[in-house]
Amino acid sequence: MPKRPLILVTNDDGITAPGLRTLIGVMREIGDVVVVAPDSPQSAMGHAITINSTLHVEKVKIDDGPQKEYSCSGTPADCVKLAVREVLKRKPDLCVSGINHGSNSSINVIYSGTMSAALEAGIESIPAIGFSLLDYNWGANFEYCTSFVKTIAENVLENGLPDGVVLNVNIPNVEKKAFKGIKICRQARANWEEEFDKRTNPMGREYYWLSGKFVNMDGGKDTDEWALENNYISVVPVQFDLTAHHAIQQLNTWKFSE
Amino acid sequence: MPKRPLILVTNDDGITAPGLRTLIGVMREIGDVVVVAPDSPQSAMGHAITINSTLHVEKVKIDDGPQKEYSCSGTPADCVKLAVREVLKRKPDLCVSGINHGSNSSINVIYSGTMSAALEAGIESIPAIGFSLLDYNWGANFEYCTSFVKTIAENVLENGLPDGVVLNVNIPNVEKKAFKGIKICRQARANWEEEFDKRTNPMGREYYWLSGKFVNMDGGKDTDEWALENNYISVVPVQFDLTAHHAIQQLNTWKFSE
Repeated sequence: MPKRPLILVTNDDGITAPGLRTLIGVMREIGDVVVVAPDSPQSAMGHAITINSTLHVEKVKIDDGPQKEYSCSGTPADCVKLAVREVLKRKPDLCVSGINHGSNSSINVIYSGTMSAALEAGIESIPAIGFSLLDYNWGANFEYCTSFVKTIAENVLENGLPDGVVLNVNIPNVEKKAFKGIKICRQARANWEEEFDKRTNPMGREYYWLSGKFVNMDGGKDTDEWALENNYISVVPVQFDLTAHHAIQQLNTWKFSE
Repeated sequence: MPKRPLILVTNDDGITAPGLRTLIGVMREIGDVVVVAPDSPQSAMGHAITINSTLHVEKVKIDDGPQKEYSCSGTPADCVKLAVREVLKRKPDLCVSGINHGSNSSINVIYSGTMSAALEAGIESIPAIGFSLLDYNWGANFEYCTSFVKTIAENVLENGLPDGVVLNVNIPNVEKKAFKGIKICRQARANWEEEFDKRTNPMGREYYWLSGKFVNMDGGKDTDEWALENNYISVVPVQFDLTAHHAIQQLNTWKFSE
């Protein structure tokens, strides 16, 4: 990479989130940074895009520094689309999303706004990484992981990524000296056993809060869940071709009779 | 299947959508139907779930018939979660989503609320199918495709689906006599070239509407786009393990130096 790369930074926790601020700081060490991030938290937005309402983008100044920052009324996927077409007017050399406050490992990738931004960039053939720290607190300590975030981003800039692949990076919530390193993994087979907390509002109407328990059904030692439990940073190559290629042959034996 | 199967029906266009009404009619021919669908349109919601606000579910009666119907304030994925835990109190034998007003082929699967409901069911190990008709009109003619919808659902009930796989079924917008049949396919590599329509509101503030052009970059004849263009119904087996397994070996050659 002869000149400084152009790096688009976004997230789903919103433009003021400490995790985003940390990521901007790391990316400024390796490139020219433009931030286009949601003006409010967009967690669990999945790969939503805004087609039935209008979108706003405002230039903002939140921290000192050379980065340009834009606040967007849309989802993380909207932010990437608007950044490429309207703000940058070209593809950045790298798109990083995060650092998310909370895990996006295993099945969480499906619900993740952080990863939807990275996937949206990948769909547009931009090398992309989503970063998440396994600590939901707004005051989470991101400093321990910044050197790992930097080396992963540098590797992507240097080596590129296979077509149609982005990285889902999750960081265990441990002290730096406990980190065992970086591990390339597959997504664990896990799900959420939902529980709905049923309540009655002051007007007598029933409502629910979604809650649940995470259940890892996967005993493999090559999964992101195993890596994180064992103090490794997990790196899962993620694709947006959802075809279950292994199932095609079996489905071709079916008889379809009207 | 000795007794009548229990079939959960949902969608993303909302509980009054004609496509959902058609799907209810077809499913009533083969099983006992419970509907839990959004109370308003949720298109392009991706795999969003509602974690920061409350959820409401109301028993409603929209059409005559033996089916039970519930309207839900949440996203399509919320509907499936609430249906299984709170409405049915057990897993249905089949979950069908749709019939969507508009395509969910190729990359649209990523943005699709219809498919997110099917994927959510799949995550909970419920056999699931998303159906979509390539006609965005509210008054689209769904009658031509009902026999195909029925035979696909019957096949899933009889044969089951591989673990972690759901079906993405798209139906070309042609007259019944033009249908060439059903084709098992892979997801085409395609994307949307976004264009943002920039306007100024009456208060002088700039805003955008998202629009764009669909671009199929995939010349394969085994894709859903090819099938649809050639008047076949496309059936893509879709998985929620997003791991790009083919990329793991390459990533393992990277050097991570802090």
